[in-house]
Amino acid sequence: MKILTLGEIMLRLSSASGQRLSNTSSLSCHYGGGEANVAISLANFGHDAYFASLVPDNLLGLGVKQHLQYYGVHTDYLLFGGERLGTYYLETGVSQRGSQVIYDRAYSSFSQISNDIWQDATLFTGIDLFHISGITPALSEDWQVLTKQLIQKARLAGCKISLDINYRGKLWTQAAAGLVIRELLPLVDYCSAGELDARYILALFDDKAISVDLLTCYQKMVATYPNLAVIYSTKRQVRSASENDLQGFIYRDGHLSMSQAYHISPIIDRVGSGDAFSAGILHGILKGWDAQEIITFGTAACVLKHTIEGDRNLFTEREVLRFQKQGSGDIKR
Amino acid sequence: MKILTLGEIMLRLSSASGQRLSNTSSLSCHYGGGEANVAISLANFGHDAYFASLVPDNLLGLGVKQHLQYYGVHTDYLLFGGERLGTYYLETGVSQRGSQVIYDRAYSSFSQISNDIWQDATLFTGIDLFHISGITPALSEDWQVLTKQLIQKARLAGCKISLDINYRGKLWTQAAAGLVIRELLPLVDYCSAGELDARYILALFDDKAISVDLLTCYQKMVATYPNLAVIYSTKRQVRSASENDLQGFIYRDGHLSMSQAYHISPIIDRVGSGDAFSAGILHGILKGWDAQEIITFGTAACVLKHTIEGDRNLFTEREVLRFQKQGSGDIKR
Amino acid sequence: MKILTLGEIMLRLSSASGQRLSNTSSLSCHYGGGEANVAISLANFGHDAYFASLVPDNLLGLGVKQHLQYYGVHTDYLLFGGERLGTYYLETGVSQRGSQVIYDRAYSSFSQISNDIWQDATLFTGIDLFHISGITPALSEDWQVLTKQLIQKARLAGCKISLDINYRGKLWTQAAAGLVIRELLPLVDYCSAGELDARYILALFDDKAISVDLLTCYQKMVATYPNLAVIYSTKRQVRSASENDLQGFIYRDGHLSMSQAYHISPIIDRVGSGDAFSAGILHGILKGWDAQEIITFGTAACVLKHTIEGDRNLFTEREVLRFQKQGSGDIKR
Amino acid sequence: MKILTLGEIMLRLSSASGQRLSNTSSLSCHYGGGEANVAISLANFGHDAYFASLVPDNLLGLGVKQHLQYYGVHTDYLLFGGERLGTYYLETGVSQRGSQVIYDRAYSSFSQISNDIWQDATLFTGIDLFHISGITPALSEDWQVLTKQLIQKARLAGCKISLDINYRGKLWTQAAAGLVIRELLPLVDYCSAGELDARYILALFDDKAISVDLLTCYQKMVATYPNLAVIYSTKRQVRSASENDLQGFIYRDGHLSMSQAYHISPIIDRVGSGDAFSAGILHGILKGWDAQEIITFGTAACVLKHTIEGDRNLFTEREVLRFQKQGSGDIKR
Amino acid sequence: MKILTLGEIMLRLSSASGQRLSNTSSLSCHYGGGEANVAISLANFGHDAYFASLVPDNLLGLGVKQHLQYYGVHTDYLLFGGERLGTYYLETGVSQRGSQVIYDRAYSSFSQISNDIWQDATLFTGIDLFHISGITPALSEDWQVLTKQLIQKARLAGCKISLDINYRGKLWTQAAAGLVIRELLPLVDYCSAGELDARYILALFDDKAISVDLLTCYQKMVATYPNLAVIYSTKRQVRSASENDLQGFIYRDGHLSMSQAYHISPIIDRVGSGDAFSAGILHGILKGWDAQEIITFGTAACVLKHTIEGDRNLFTEREVLRFQKQGSGDIKR
Amino acid sequence: MKILTLGEIMLRLSSASGQRLSNTSSLSCHYGGGEANVAISLANFGHDAYFASLVPDNLLGLGVKQHLQYYGVHTDYLLFGGERLGTYYLETGVSQRGSQVIYDRAYSSFSQISNDIWQDATLFTGIDLFHISGITPALSEDWQVLTKQLIQKARLAGCKISLDINYRGKLWTQAAAGLVIRELLPLVDYCSAGELDARYILALFDDKAISVDLLTCYQKMVATYPNLAVIYSTKRQVRSASENDLQGFIYRDGHLSMSQAYHISPIIDRVGSGDAFSAGILHGILKGWDAQEIITFGTAACVLKHTIEGDRNLFTEREVLRFQKQGSGDIKR
Repeated sequence: MKILTLGEIMLRLSSASGQRLSNTSSLSCHYGGGEANVAISLANFGHDAYFASLVPDNLLGLGVKQHLQYYGVHTDYLLFGGERLGTYYLETGVSQRGSQVIYDRAYSSFSQISNDIWQDATLFTGIDLFHISGITPALSEDWQVLTKQLIQKARLAGCKISLDINYRGKLWTQAAAGLVIRELLPLVDYCSAGELDARYILALFDDKAISVDLLTCYQKMVATYPNLAVIYSTKRQVRSASENDLQGFIYRDGHLSMSQAYHISPIIDRVGSGDAFSAGILHGILKGWDAQEIITFGTAACVLKHTIEGDRNLFTEREVLRFQKQGSGDIKR
Repeated sequence: MKILTLGEIMLRLSSASGQRLSNTSSLSCHYGGGEANVAISLANFGHDAYFASLVPDNLLGLGVKQHLQYYGVHTDYLLFGGERLGTYYLETGVSQRGSQVIYDRAYSSFSQISNDIWQDATLFTGIDLFHISGITPALSEDWQVLTKQLIQKARLAGCKISLDINYRGKLWTQAAAGLVIRELLPLVDYCSAGELDARYILALFDDKAISVDLLTCYQKMVATYPNLAVIYSTKRQVRSASENDLQGFIYRDGHLSMSQAYHISPIIDRVGSGDAFSAGILHGILKGWDAQEIITFGTAACVLKHTIEGDRNLFTEREVLRFQKQGSGDIKR
Repeated sequence: MKILTLGEIMLRLSSASGQRLSNTSSLSCHYGGGEANVAISLANFGHDAYFASLVPDNLLGLGVKQHLQYYGVHTDYLLFGGERLGTYYLETGVSQRGSQVIYDRAYSSFSQISNDIWQDATLFTGIDLFHISGITPALSEDWQVLTKQLIQKARLAGCKISLDINYRGKLWTQAAAGLVIRELLPLVDYCSAGELDARYILALFDDKAISVDLLTCYQKMVATYPNLAVIYSTKRQVRSASENDLQGFIYRDGHLSMSQAYHISPIIDRVGSGDAFSAGILHGILKGWDAQEIITFGTAACVLKHTIEGDRNLFTEREVLRFQKQGSGDIKR
Repeated sequence: MKILTLGEIMLRLSSASGQRLSNTSSLSCHYGGGEANVAISLANFGHDAYFASLVPDNLLGLGVKQHLQYYGVHTDYLLFGGERLGTYYLETGVSQRGSQVIYDRAYSSFSQISNDIWQDATLFTGIDLFHISGITPALSEDWQVLTKQLIQKARLAGCKISLDINYRGKLWTQAAAGLVIRELLPLVDYCSAGELDARYILALFDDKAISVDLLTCYQKMVATYPNLAVIYSTKRQVRSASENDLQGFIYRDGHLSMSQAYHISPIIDRVGSGDAFSAGILHGILKGWDAQEIITFGTAACVLKHTIEGDRNLFTEREVLRFQKQGSGDIKR
Repeated sequence: MKILTLGEIMLRLSSASGQRLSNTSSLSCHYGGGEANVAISLANFGHDAYFASLVPDNLLGLGVKQHLQYYGVHTDYLLFGGERLGTYYLETGVSQRGSQVIYDRAYSSFSQISNDIWQDATLFTGIDLFHISGITPALSEDWQVLTKQLIQKARLAGCKISLDINYRGKLWTQAAAGLVIRELLPLVDYCSAGELDARYILALFDDKAISVDLLTCYQKMVATYPNLAVIYSTKRQVRSASENDLQGFIYRDGHLSMSQAYHISPIIDRVGSGDAFSAGILHGILKGWDAQEIITFGTAACVLKHTIEGDRNLFTEREVLRFQKQGSGDIKR
Repeated sequence: MKILTLGEIMLRLSSASGQRLSNTSSLSCHYGGGEANVAISLANFGHDAYFASLVPDNLLGLGVKQHLQYYGVHTDYLLFGGERLGTYYLETGVSQRGSQVIYDRAYSSFSQISNDIWQDATLFTGIDLFHISGITPALSEDWQVLTKQLIQKARLAGCKISLDINYRGKLWTQAAAGLVIRELLPLVDYCSAGELDARYILALFDDKAISVDLLTCYQKMVATYPNLAVIYSTKRQVRSASENDLQGFIYRDGHLSMSQAYHISPIIDRVGSGDAFSAGILHGILKGWDAQEIITFGTAACVLKHTIEGDRNLFTEREVLRFQKQGSGDIKR
């Protein structure tokens, strides 16, 4: 299958565990971004994945291109221009101390895009699935308009639309996000959204004091946006920065399916685990699996991501399936 | 507020986790010492902190000075001279294997001090709090005399006196420590001491077989030394070198207050966590907080220290308070 | 006591935790092999340990020799020749992701041995114990013949025989292993074997569906091979690649003794922990300890191994005994 | 003496030798900026050095503050605010391949300053020397106005004025720089400027084809700007990125003095060597040395800088003088 | 243009400078092989480059594939199978101590190929240039047959043929190589060969005692093999492992052209510099440049390679041309 | 042959190139000492080498033992006891900046020895050569007595005596050294001594203003101490910390022989190169080579040492001889 994802990709600069950002003498480098991470996972699963973005025409932009090529992601729509590559600093948390992020992404090439720079390209030709996230419209007012236009073009070209709401409190308010996301949702087929999204972004429930469960949320979402064929999310209990419990959920055809609950300890790198999950879900959908197979696979891919440094996941379909079967963490020799 | 701490500062040479001291090919370097660590924490919390000591006039002595300056600790009373900087080797433990220390501190510049080398200085002028530990009188007989003299001078200058008993079995016997500490305690306002100190150093209980709880210990301490305004300590359950449970206790005005119990896993570096705790308690006292606020803050600071490589703590008041509120270990982005 | 172990030693090339083998930019190097690891542990415990093998006459062969010498293992019977040193790649697992091994050991100098290259040497003269593993006959048909010949020679020279069955599914089938091992067992005094070995390699139970416990297995083994003076093994519950529970068992004189159960978390390096256990057991036997002392010591040595990078264990008898007594993981200073 | 320097300080992210920026997996971190580097050197030489700037109120801004404090530079005028810390990427050159820089400094807190944010401060009170560079007015039109205003204020306060022309072709054109620098020069006492500056920035020579030597340049500069008490520069012959020849020159009272020529190989880090030179010259001026002593010291300091990783120099006056005397590179033991 | 290169690619495991192979604790990993390195360089220069080989179907084989993809090399003809990936150990030399290599490449997947495994593929369709080296027929007798067959097929398909003689004394004798290479040369258009090749492999001169220069060699080669359109080589004077002088030569249309002589010091990594040179020459031929332009470019690319860790070159055409113009090693900022 | 060397062995803690000791965050660890280094080299050359010393009974003492065992040095006379292992800090120089040493060796176990702790051992039984250096009597007055006693015992036992004068200005004055060394020299057979030793330690020339060459020095030495069978030294021209020229000289039977002059650049680690030279010379003597063969071999070994990190040399006789023949620094493959 052919998939196109589009979004910003940044240089992540992260401190080692046990160090603080203010006095580290070196930083690890990883290129990452939600949509790029999804494209890489899908390429690892055997699909023809394309990633569209804009990066500066310098050695960092070249680094982005080669990073994508390494995994076999097609870079036909990775354009070069603009002023700078967005970056962010990650102080890697451990134990009781959570990770923290300093964004330095303003004025990036991608965020400054004000019109469809891919308009002359055959961007959606032959594409089965177009994946995008709620981070993109958070970048500028131009991007709020552009995001909707791109989704509409994709639909016209016959693509299925996948949206990861991916709310980031450091980029915009819940109210601002709500206005934009609620306008996009009627165009979407597959959506990554959790209880907090349903409640605070989509504002589906009047009285915020009443507790609602995930099933109720998803039922209400589909009642409001009947175009949504699949909704999915993880529930994560954060015991510490190093120890989380995680379970995956998917809603399709009126039923809620769920994976086993995993205990993940220690966590090597949590960033990008949501993208690994989304990619696993989308892979299952593209393969035509049933809901239980999909959520089992997506959650397994997500769990494995936590054991890998860097934003993107590194496992093939065969490896994820083997992990589902053998599970433990035992050595093979 | 102005605080003066005085004591030895050493070069710590530590092996990486998973390595043994005997066959490591590199050692991590950290300068540290109980009183220096307290001074750094208090400087991080916004106080005017001074550290007094003696280090050799070579590149390692310069390293000590710059280490303190980095955190804004004043080095007016850091003198230069003597033969060598005390060092110690730390084999970093992990999992079931505990850390171990090889002291190489004999003949250090500081330990060889035999009279008040700061006597012409205005050492205690304007100082609100003077903090010292039981390690210093353990270094020599001269230091047993000097420690008491310094405390007396400080009291005359109007300083509050803080003493961390900090018994080290590799430096002296419990009996020897008892004689000295019991002579100092009548001069002290704030004291870090636990059940073992009360029992074996202060010898407050005749029959050692009878179990006594911390409250009883503290009541007996105050009955014996009514000058003690605050006594505090942590209880630590060592599940392994990587996993501890920890809770903080403070006794003031006849009441025992305690923090929540924290589960810390994995531990990056436990050395200096007691100093981080003391500094947190002293900060709370200096701020005029109530006992519950103090112990909550001190324990939170202590827990965060476990996530940081090196002896000194690296958090501001704002960061500790944010940790108390958010707690978990979740990522902020 | 004098001990000879004989087998293959390889270069292990392992990726760092959080990295995958396919895209690591550096690999850690450790020389290791079951019998060599046992020899090193026994040398650390104070014995005269010899290791016999064949390695190529190049810098890697020299590295093997120096590796053994470092621990005081005698290398009189370490011969030089053949084409290559066997290697294996270890992708170090963490958390839910298990370690995995890529063997690259075919055509190694040792595996190509086709006749007794030590025949002119006084190989077994003065040796009290000869230790070998089931990996060696798995290497070739020649080695199946040679292994038996060597054991027979050792018995003639008066050595006790120790065999670690050590079944490796990547080297041969259970059926093939069974044929060979069952021919060797009548010559063995001390045997490392677990339930799976009893069932699938020794085929001691007709109906595989019926659950049998370890005691039954060992009773049946001794009934079949009454020459077996000691049988031992660990039970390991793999919660994850980083977290295992482990308990040791020993069967002697009709009684099954066991150690306490240890919780090991995090695991630094599990490879070689079985060898550390065997060496601990053999040390106890050589010292004439009782069964409970032996299994306590062997399991403690095994637990400590998990905290050390590399295949061989690094603890003296005194250190293992101190760990048995102090246990926790507390810091000593 | 009291010195104030003012300018931008950035985070430098540099690749290791032998790596390219596009595919490095880690970057070394150093805070640096011309004026900050000068302040650090002068503090190392024993002066009271102040550095004024604006950095964001986050962990990177804190890192800058601690970086300066480490060397004893006063941070009273280091203010916090604005959007981001300027950064630049350095691909470290070696052998025939030169280093290259990717600036990512636009929109930094410092560059966005539009009015005198230190106006209420007693910025120049008691300051003997104010040092600034031509990089600052290159940052914005506001900074062109501000730079001149600050220099005028400093003169009113009785400071001597030091200007390092420091032309950067990636920031502005020679023509633009010329207009600004020529307006500042009449206010300056000590100026770092070379032949290229005299020719292309100051446009002192009509016919560019005629070769002029450094003495002629300096004579013409002083003829044009008779306020210039000292002018100085190095001549550097770049044999390769790893091997340079370097000689220092100073012009005072109508005479040109010069240092010996040094052969520097290999170069560890050339960035900041010009600042080390300027600081050495200014130190000599502040000490009242004669021209030959000044240029000898400044060039020695500059040469030593090439052997140190990071932008700032790390030597005391005593160490530089010892190097001048012993010179060679021999080991002392 | 479309280029196909075919050959073995191996995992290089190299020690750090200053370490010996026998006692290093880590090894750097690079995938490399003469033909793969040429393909990568040509892809960096903007061509459609294909690399054909056989690697094992494991994580190392995947690593090879991703390594090639990173640079945009097409992997359609990279097949998976066989037993193992060839490896070699490189003890990195420095100063007076030369590098040394331990080959561990016997029994590799590629070396065991005995028939044309790409026969059903459209291997040469649309390919302009087929590049291969003399290492491949050195691997086995089957490969001596296959190499010739592949070249003949390529010629039939209309490809130009490029051969790098690349004699390796550790793989075969000069006599054996001579027999094979002399049979291939009549099929070749572009050949990398030096004086030693002409004399000892091609045996063009009867009396070995008489000194002949490069021009004479090339004239004799073309006289013997008039099909040779271009012959090229470098002359390298090895002053030490860290310091070489290097000059490039090309012979076309009866004329010998040469580059400037470069002094390279220090050398970061010399391995693959010959491949970088060949790729630069082939690029110039494909671009239709004149001989002087070609040799200037090829030598510049070769010189830059020495500054990069790893076997493959990392520069674009634009970067090589800029280096030719600016040359020095100066910093750009 | 059997060789015994006796002296102090220390832990060297060295900073990386480009770092200063005062602010390094890690230190490399090497065990080293002149006599231990000689023993290791001689073991590498195939001799039975013994090293006698005293180290503390802790993990660092164990590390020393294993360090020696690694190279096959016999540790029968390595005793355990005393307070501490001597250490020294090495700031690694580069380019124009020389290395510098901070000794922290006072109060070490070895330096505190006051009587012959090996007296009951068969220390010199069967030993052909006893090697010691002038550093040992520099450690204490007791050691001045002991050194002479040990040499006398060795002579009685029939050993040849080798002395490396090895004057260290940080340990004693030239006058003090002279008194001691001149008392030892009549007992010595082979002596490492240079012009400065002849002039300033042995005080062989009245008028210090007159220039004397090495031959004159050696002639005068032998005239004064006719027992000296061999005298040898290197001449080193220190161009920088990274670049030295070096030539070896030996005087025997009235003739001065010399090696070629080597240019060494870059120097990885110069410490221990004198010991590598001495060991090479002693090896040649033990092998019965002629003077030219000896000095050629000794100098080659010394040159190779400069390319290796750590104090001890790492080459076999075969490797040194191959280097003498091939010389260059070319790669072998």
